[in-house]
Amino acid sequence: MEKLRVLTAGESHGECLTAIIEGMVAGLELDLDFINGELARRQQGYGRGGRMKLENDTVKITSGVAGGKTTGAPIAIVIGNKNRDNEGTPFTAYRPGHADFAGSVKYGHEDLRNVLERASARKTAIEVAVGAVAQLFLKEFGITGSVSADIDTERIDAAKEAGDTLGGKFEVVYTGLPVGLGSYVHADRAIDGRLAQAVMSIPAVKVVEIGTNPLGMYGSEYHDEIFAGGVRKTNNAGGVEGGMTNGEPLVVKGVMKPIPTMRKPLNTVDSKTGQPVQAFVERSDTCAVEACSVVAQARVACVLADEMLLKFGGDSLNEVKKNYAGVRG
Amino acid sequence: MEKLRVLTAGESHGECLTAIIEGMVAGLELDLDFINGELARRQQGYGRGGRMKLENDTVKITSGVAGGKTTGAPIAIVIGNKNRDNEGTPFTAYRPGHADFAGSVKYGHEDLRNVLERASARKTAIEVAVGAVAQLFLKEFGITGSVSADIDTERIDAAKEAGDTLGGKFEVVYTGLPVGLGSYVHADRAIDGRLAQAVMSIPAVKVVEIGTNPLGMYGSEYHDEIFAGGVRKTNNAGGVEGGMTNGEPLVVKGVMKPIPTMRKPLNTVDSKTGQPVQAFVERSDTCAVEACSVVAQARVACVLADEMLLKFGGDSLNEVKKNYAGVRG
Amino acid sequence: MEKLRVLTAGESHGECLTAIIEGMVAGLELDLDFINGELARRQQGYGRGGRMKLENDTVKITSGVAGGKTTGAPIAIVIGNKNRDNEGTPFTAYRPGHADFAGSVKYGHEDLRNVLERASARKTAIEVAVGAVAQLFLKEFGITGSVSADIDTERIDAAKEAGDTLGGKFEVVYTGLPVGLGSYVHADRAIDGRLAQAVMSIPAVKVVEIGTNPLGMYGSEYHDEIFAGGVRKTNNAGGVEGGMTNGEPLVVKGVMKPIPTMRKPLNTVDSKTGQPVQAFVERSDTCAVEACSVVAQARVACVLADEMLLKFGGDSLNEVKKNYAGVRG
Amino acid sequence: MEKLRVLTAGESHGECLTAIIEGMVAGLELDLDFINGELARRQQGYGRGGRMKLENDTVKITSGVAGGKTTGAPIAIVIGNKNRDNEGTPFTAYRPGHADFAGSVKYGHEDLRNVLERASARKTAIEVAVGAVAQLFLKEFGITGSVSADIDTERIDAAKEAGDTLGGKFEVVYTGLPVGLGSYVHADRAIDGRLAQAVMSIPAVKVVEIGTNPLGMYGSEYHDEIFAGGVRKTNNAGGVEGGMTNGEPLVVKGVMKPIPTMRKPLNTVDSKTGQPVQAFVERSDTCAVEACSVVAQARVACVLADEMLLKFGGDSLNEVKKNYAGVRG
Repeated sequence: MEKLRVLTAGESHGECLTAIIEGMVAGLELDLDFINGELARRQQGYGRGGRMKLENDTVKITSGVAGGKTTGAPIAIVIGNKNRDNEGTPFTAYRPGHADFAGSVKYGHEDLRNVLERASARKTAIEVAVGAVAQLFLKEFGITGSVSADIDTERIDAAKEAGDTLGGKFEVVYTGLPVGLGSYVHADRAIDGRLAQAVMSIPAVKVVEIGTNPLGMYGSEYHDEIFAGGVRKTNNAGGVEGGMTNGEPLVVKGVMKPIPTMRKPLNTVDSKTGQPVQAFVERSDTCAVEACSVVAQARVACVLADEMLLKFGGDSLNEVKKNYAGVRG
Repeated sequence: MEKLRVLTAGESHGECLTAIIEGMVAGLELDLDFINGELARRQQGYGRGGRMKLENDTVKITSGVAGGKTTGAPIAIVIGNKNRDNEGTPFTAYRPGHADFAGSVKYGHEDLRNVLERASARKTAIEVAVGAVAQLFLKEFGITGSVSADIDTERIDAAKEAGDTLGGKFEVVYTGLPVGLGSYVHADRAIDGRLAQAVMSIPAVKVVEIGTNPLGMYGSEYHDEIFAGGVRKTNNAGGVEGGMTNGEPLVVKGVMKPIPTMRKPLNTVDSKTGQPVQAFVERSDTCAVEACSVVAQARVACVLADEMLLKFGGDSLNEVKKNYAGVRG
Repeated sequence: MEKLRVLTAGESHGECLTAIIEGMVAGLELDLDFINGELARRQQGYGRGGRMKLENDTVKITSGVAGGKTTGAPIAIVIGNKNRDNEGTPFTAYRPGHADFAGSVKYGHEDLRNVLERASARKTAIEVAVGAVAQLFLKEFGITGSVSADIDTERIDAAKEAGDTLGGKFEVVYTGLPVGLGSYVHADRAIDGRLAQAVMSIPAVKVVEIGTNPLGMYGSEYHDEIFAGGVRKTNNAGGVEGGMTNGEPLVVKGVMKPIPTMRKPLNTVDSKTGQPVQAFVERSDTCAVEACSVVAQARVACVLADEMLLKFGGDSLNEVKKNYAGVRG
Repeated sequence: MEKLRVLTAGESHGECLTAIIEGMVAGLELDLDFINGELARRQQGYGRGGRMKLENDTVKITSGVAGGKTTGAPIAIVIGNKNRDNEGTPFTAYRPGHADFAGSVKYGHEDLRNVLERASARKTAIEVAVGAVAQLFLKEFGITGSVSADIDTERIDAAKEAGDTLGGKFEVVYTGLPVGLGSYVHADRAIDGRLAQAVMSIPAVKVVEIGTNPLGMYGSEYHDEIFAGGVRKTNNAGGVEGGMTNGEPLVVKGVMKPIPTMRKPLNTVDSKTGQPVQAFVERSDTCAVEACSVVAQARVACVLADEMLLKFGGDSLNEVKKNYAGVRG
């Protein structure tokens, strides 16, 4: 059940990345500087290699906007790819940790390049743009997101020197959310489930947590008691109880695995010959956790925007605001 | 994108729990003993209180089956509730850690009983029955699931004595999966995302992991190299690379928070008076991690069965098997 | 994109028909007399045979309701089947005009009874019950439906005498609808498309029309001009322009084919022997157009209720009403 | 339940129309000449005005293809708009028969141009391109479509001279379909319902028929008897029985209303002043039934391709073919 539908397309070295967002209300100002700023955030972070600096992504919006505001029609967003000519060479050695093996079996590709081109994290750029549109919508209701990432720069430096890579943990926080997004009435409407899907499906994410990891805690330690005036003094629940937002800050954490493309290459086999070889190396990032956190912030925004639209209805920003005020007031 | 659609209904003290499964193939033998056995597994585990023993759930299948086999028509499953008369009393003090607060705000319920009745984990019984049907389908392809739970019985005993509760970690493993369930081509088709949603939306689950938690590991330590014959010697990826199954055992872990209903009650406020009170106590389990793992096994089965149906198509079990053999052979 | 999800189950001679409705708001009074009254309307009409009188359907609601009102939880509805023991015999001769041939090829059924049992129009009883719930919701906003059917009783009598059958045309009208349900922004959001699907998928319906059939009319004759005060003097558009309701009465028409089960039997072949035989005769209705119109009214209600929920949002009836008033006022 | 997901975007005078197709198999050759040929067919037909000749649409495929074949990744298709500068002027008089009134109320647009730009039939160009991709897939299985339209050129000429417009009836036929696409097991899986939605949601279509309109026919006249060898001598059912294809040619008919934009203008009111005015005239087609039939052929192709993918599964064209052969053989 989604009111906000999104499809994305685009390859790592193709002409462009494209997204269509269907279901956004009319009357939302699409601040291109904000959207491009989110793209810039994604390209930064300690441990990134050379390509990121080259990209310098900016969006072009080709549909769904008139006079700078959404019209209610589907929004088409395009990000051009630069440096398209490099790195597009075929290869046949499965890179461990990547989609190469399963993807080539699934789709019948002999040239693993045909898997890599779409499986690449390059596609998260357009997802960040989509999430930026969702964030612009959320901001209209005072809902804002931020991220932090645990970065051990010494270990990143060590990894870089060794030709190795490192993952890490990040945290997304959204504040200003109303009570009651999501639901307990049906399993697939639980907002924690939707958030987990959104974050776990980011390339390289292997762990998702909502709030404090309760492992080893007694109930008397973990649960967030309620005091006079409805005040909570703790937020171990991360803002979600019973599959719904409870008005406290939403806290979603993720753990990213180390980037599987490494200068110190991994053992693998060639898909054609079956012979042991060393995995092909295309990119040279050492750590991309900060970028990943920006992608997670974007993904979470899409879930929250959709839940806002489901709960408050409306076809224009004004109508949603009126409905929202009716509940709040 | 789902081929297997499921809706469930039912309250904790209502007449019955009901599920309808739409999209299951014809010709699958519905082994009631297996289904009821799964329900029994859910009712066991160290740390359970009194109610579980009373329930002793069994299913009744009222549609979609002829001569013990599915017909392709929607399958309706019913589990009656026993001991319906107890415990159905109204209450107005929000129980921290439960759906009470957000649920009553969302739906406008004054009597929090109207939230509790559906938010209760009682509804996971019918989800286990649905998952058992999915498991019967998977078994036809040699795909089988199992669970384990980290149970520290001493701490459970201590919690019980103190009127406190304890959560814990569990692990679901499925073996025999083909390569290429899920996909990297679109974010919402990643099987790790779908699995995370399925497990995180189980009441009380706050953490989901696929395979080994990579936190702190270098790429050279974490990634599962491929050796001659396509053999892997490690499975840190938990059977998922690039959002797809890679043929290794699927490993999904979850962490359950401590049950929020405790004899040693939590501070809260009354929704009517706004006054501080102590939370209402209905159930008396100390730890339900083993039950939770059975629910997780069921939920994962539903995702896997759906992905099998999406990949291999077919309207009868024979047709799916033929298609499956064509890929395997 | 649906906010109101419905699954149904049940066979013609099974224990019961079941539906689960997920996504209905809390606080709606479920008037059982109205629901049962709709079921009774479906069982009437000129040209019906004996079985209809036997059925005398009534619903039992097993979940989703407390104190006579919906709680926001999924609603489970059950209709028991009477006279279950008759007519359940196997058969192998494809009945032309029925699902027998294609259904048995699709699902691999040797006994065509396994197709008939679900393909039978018996299942429309539970669809009428679901539609009655949707109608109760619509009534809260002053939206009401009615039907009429072109019944030529002399031709029905003649058909009956000859062992033949007759179809016919029916019309569903809903009044009180707000402007702007549905949308032009994406093909699958056009309300006329959704209505056409809802009505065309009723067993035996082969034609759907919205408003006046424009065949042969010039633009100057057909289009509904707008006069001072926004008044229309005609409604050829049947209340839909640009894929949206325009505030005029919604008019949806359908043509039902003659019932394919006839005493004067059709030529066919036996699926096992391949030999020419005459088709098996189970039921004895001559004309079911009036029943079909009641089913159509129910189906249309489901589309309209879903569109109301999508446009106005809300989790309780009060919230939807507040949002609705905000738009209207 | 869809395996093939499509979103489109684009305005009548915007930079371009865009579509993303998600779920198409890998290995399908995308014949650009065929796709562009379908676009050319849409631009022809007796009764078209000047704009059509100017457009001369051609597609650009920016993602999802490598070496001329699909890769399994989402396919992005773009059609540029020519003559973008003309005709983009604001207006405030509701055009009867268009989305102007309901669309402006729904989305809060003061300038009706913001409705027109997306509501315009211009967007059907990209839908024809999407349908052409679906047709290329279907052709691999020997499934081909054709259309015919009832064109009374004398009446069109008379309408043109009078500044009036004319609709008409068209027919789409697909041959080569396997038995058993769609299903009787759940209302929303009936293929006739899906086809009706696909065709009724085309701008200006008000009637959809499957096969022969049965109005007034007796059962003994209408139903398609089955003879030795499974042969049918008639196809009144239009290839659909029980919500499924039955192996006979699929026949879907539609009636298009007269184009509501007429030189002989309609009475209406101005949305700002409320005063009676005459409707704004932008385009000058007299009859677009032939174009509409091409759009219908495209839309039907999308439904059929999706149903093929649902029934036969598979991620590459080879895999679908193998599964298909298994059923056929």
